[in-house]
Amino acid sequence: MENEILNTSADHHKALTIGLFGFGVVGEGLYKVLHQTPSLKATIKKVCIKNPGKPRQAPPSLFTTEKDVLLNDPEINVIVEVIDDSVAAFAIVKTALLNGKHVVSASKKMIAENLPEILSLQQQTGRSFLCEAAACASIPVIRNLEEYYDNDLLHGIQAIVNGSTNYILTKMFEDKLDYRDALLQAQQLGFAESDPKLDVEGYDAVNKWTFLLTHAYGIVTPASNILFSGIQNVQGFDAQVGTEKGWTIRLVAQARKLESGKVAAFVLPQFVKPENHLSFVRHEYNGVVIESGFADKQFFYGKGAGSFPTASAVLSDISALRYDYKYEYKKLYHHTPGTLSEDYYLRIFLSFEDVSVVPKEKFETIEEWHAREDRKYLAGLIHVSHLRNADWWKKDGISLVLLPDAIVESVEISKVKRKSLELAGLQLHHGYSGY
Amino acid sequence: MENEILNTSADHHKALTIGLFGFGVVGEGLYKVLHQTPSLKATIKKVCIKNPGKPRQAPPSLFTTEKDVLLNDPEINVIVEVIDDSVAAFAIVKTALLNGKHVVSASKKMIAENLPEILSLQQQTGRSFLCEAAACASIPVIRNLEEYYDNDLLHGIQAIVNGSTNYILTKMFEDKLDYRDALLQAQQLGFAESDPKLDVEGYDAVNKWTFLLTHAYGIVTPASNILFSGIQNVQGFDAQVGTEKGWTIRLVAQARKLESGKVAAFVLPQFVKPENHLSFVRHEYNGVVIESGFADKQFFYGKGAGSFPTASAVLSDISALRYDYKYEYKKLYHHTPGTLSEDYYLRIFLSFEDVSVVPKEKFETIEEWHAREDRKYLAGLIHVSHLRNADWWKKDGISLVLLPDAIVESVEISKVKRKSLELAGLQLHHGYSGY
Repeated sequence: MENEILNTSADHHKALTIGLFGFGVVGEGLYKVLHQTPSLKATIKKVCIKNPGKPRQAPPSLFTTEKDVLLNDPEINVIVEVIDDSVAAFAIVKTALLNGKHVVSASKKMIAENLPEILSLQQQTGRSFLCEAAACASIPVIRNLEEYYDNDLLHGIQAIVNGSTNYILTKMFEDKLDYRDALLQAQQLGFAESDPKLDVEGYDAVNKWTFLLTHAYGIVTPASNILFSGIQNVQGFDAQVGTEKGWTIRLVAQARKLESGKVAAFVLPQFVKPENHLSFVRHEYNGVVIESGFADKQFFYGKGAGSFPTASAVLSDISALRYDYKYEYKKLYHHTPGTLSEDYYLRIFLSFEDVSVVPKEKFETIEEWHAREDRKYLAGLIHVSHLRNADWWKKDGISLVLLPDAIVESVEISKVKRKSLELAGLQLHHGYSGY
Repeated sequence: MENEILNTSADHHKALTIGLFGFGVVGEGLYKVLHQTPSLKATIKKVCIKNPGKPRQAPPSLFTTEKDVLLNDPEINVIVEVIDDSVAAFAIVKTALLNGKHVVSASKKMIAENLPEILSLQQQTGRSFLCEAAACASIPVIRNLEEYYDNDLLHGIQAIVNGSTNYILTKMFEDKLDYRDALLQAQQLGFAESDPKLDVEGYDAVNKWTFLLTHAYGIVTPASNILFSGIQNVQGFDAQVGTEKGWTIRLVAQARKLESGKVAAFVLPQFVKPENHLSFVRHEYNGVVIESGFADKQFFYGKGAGSFPTASAVLSDISALRYDYKYEYKKLYHHTPGTLSEDYYLRIFLSFEDVSVVPKEKFETIEEWHAREDRKYLAGLIHVSHLRNADWWKKDGISLVLLPDAIVESVEISKVKRKSLELAGLQLHHGYSGY
């Protein structure tokens, strides 16, 4: 009986022969790192690149522009894919799995766009598809969600998964830069792309959140089903208000299991109190807070991007392939998969110049109201459907930032609501600055 | 070729039949947690206990006082051992491995005391010995050190691995309690044993550090080879000095690779600046900062003890056994194993009542000197051998706290040294407070 459960010979770990797609900063970093770790018994046999003309720090015989040279080589048993183009990346991943190869990928956008098919390809072929590098780079979040919380009641996750936006927010708070200047500085330092839309408007973060939700809760859903925004509308004014309260702002990807059993999940800017672990995450770093029934609150922190942190995560996947590791997607296949809730309330802060764009009647309560010559804000409770099915709050000049402890599962709508709305109306007309 | 490297059938994971030793808080926690996770396909067949008379929340037929009932049962393929007695625990572990069973253990003291034999038993039997719960409980530090830094240049680790001492230090700083009152409070809350020696004098921390050094650097050494102390001599006075400088004190287990290639490793109280991640770790929590060449700086934080956090770590090991996971001890077997350095300097703060007990002549330099009616302190640089081979600094009334950035690899001994010593002498005689 015991002999059955473990293959114990020292030669258990097969040599890995790698076909690498992409030789940018991550691909080249991986090449260098592999050279320094012969103990891994993993060799890059061939590298597929787009532009053969570029000078590269590796023997020319290593390179090809023909993807089939890698995908059809029976000796290559692992395809590592670190390219930018998500359509090309998916074609590579699909063929590689169908050809019986394991795949290691760092392409978050590709994964987010093709999650159902990637899942079914893994089931169909039995091959491993590992992607630790695709979210939070050096932080081992995916494998820990897979391995450490499968037996645990996962109450919730809060994460900073995009370093560019975190850098910009840090600069807005700590150096009092306005959004434009902070963005410019991030670009100059290489923390943001020249077209920063993917980062600052939240697309990158929500892409990562799709598959982290799969590993955490067994939820398989496209990014378009998840409530999200970026930090493009966050104002210096909001940072001032936060600073006065002793808070900071982070772009937080979060998920929380509700009493209904469903999961509230979204990616939105949020005021963060100093005692929240995420306030510790500054500049281009990433961080993940996991709350669970048995392990209590855990916090993981590290570099979320960059050549070596990403290469290091890719390498840990390669290393795991040596003992036949694959994601089991336990919450998806072995439990009842989680589903997204559309029925909860959010406590939000909203700042704006022109109050007429704010549908005050949609709020359950308004807790706070403040008007100043240049800009106004309110803090109140709103049903998530009024954000999911509308875009008034994403318009230029309107900034929505979640309040701390934003999720409220149910409210008693009573006179309190009417009263708070009256209060807001009153204060509005008189330009009164209240609490 | 590809077919060789992965066994992909859905039935790959064998059912695990567990023999459990110990039904205290952790054992009972594990029993409850397993009941809630049928997907794990792991069953506790029998539990071995010492005292059959105690009422327990489980069917009486589950229990036995005969250890051989578990150890000789061919159906039981996993022994989980969560008992206090380190001698009995090792006898169980040894027999279990020799009988072809995998072992999951939470007994740090037992592991520290028997590391070489546990290593050779693993090699001899080819069975897994997993012990994630033995250090930092819910923080997945061992497996991450094994899997994530094998290919990386591991520059250093700093960790808070004992929750009791961290709770006491937090109370000394934040509530200005003196050591005795803080200890009493920790005992009342169950964070410290009624005999707190193992915790407060650093034995528990250094025990954990022995096998973390094995997973991090391939170092196999008994606790007696590691420089350590606890917090039993830390004074309210030291906390005042720290507070004035904006620092706090933590009991830090650390290791750092020196230029010589050897590793400096010790467990000592240390002043910690606010920007150090460990300052974030308060109360009974644990934290680990890992610095590496590729992944940069990473920080893991969570509960280091308690029934459910520990059970959760045990469970993650059980879960890992389903895919035949075992530690490879890569740094020990696949690299040149690390060795401890005895040749470096430490920047220390020393407070005392009576200067005659301090061997001033052993210091390379004295950076700072302060005398007050009741208590004096100095800050200076000393060779590690003057601490390793002596115990004057552990005597009652003397408190040694490392300064931030404590490790200095080499110093130029020159006139500066003599001058600083003269200065100290002068200041001493005149009761002068300055540098």
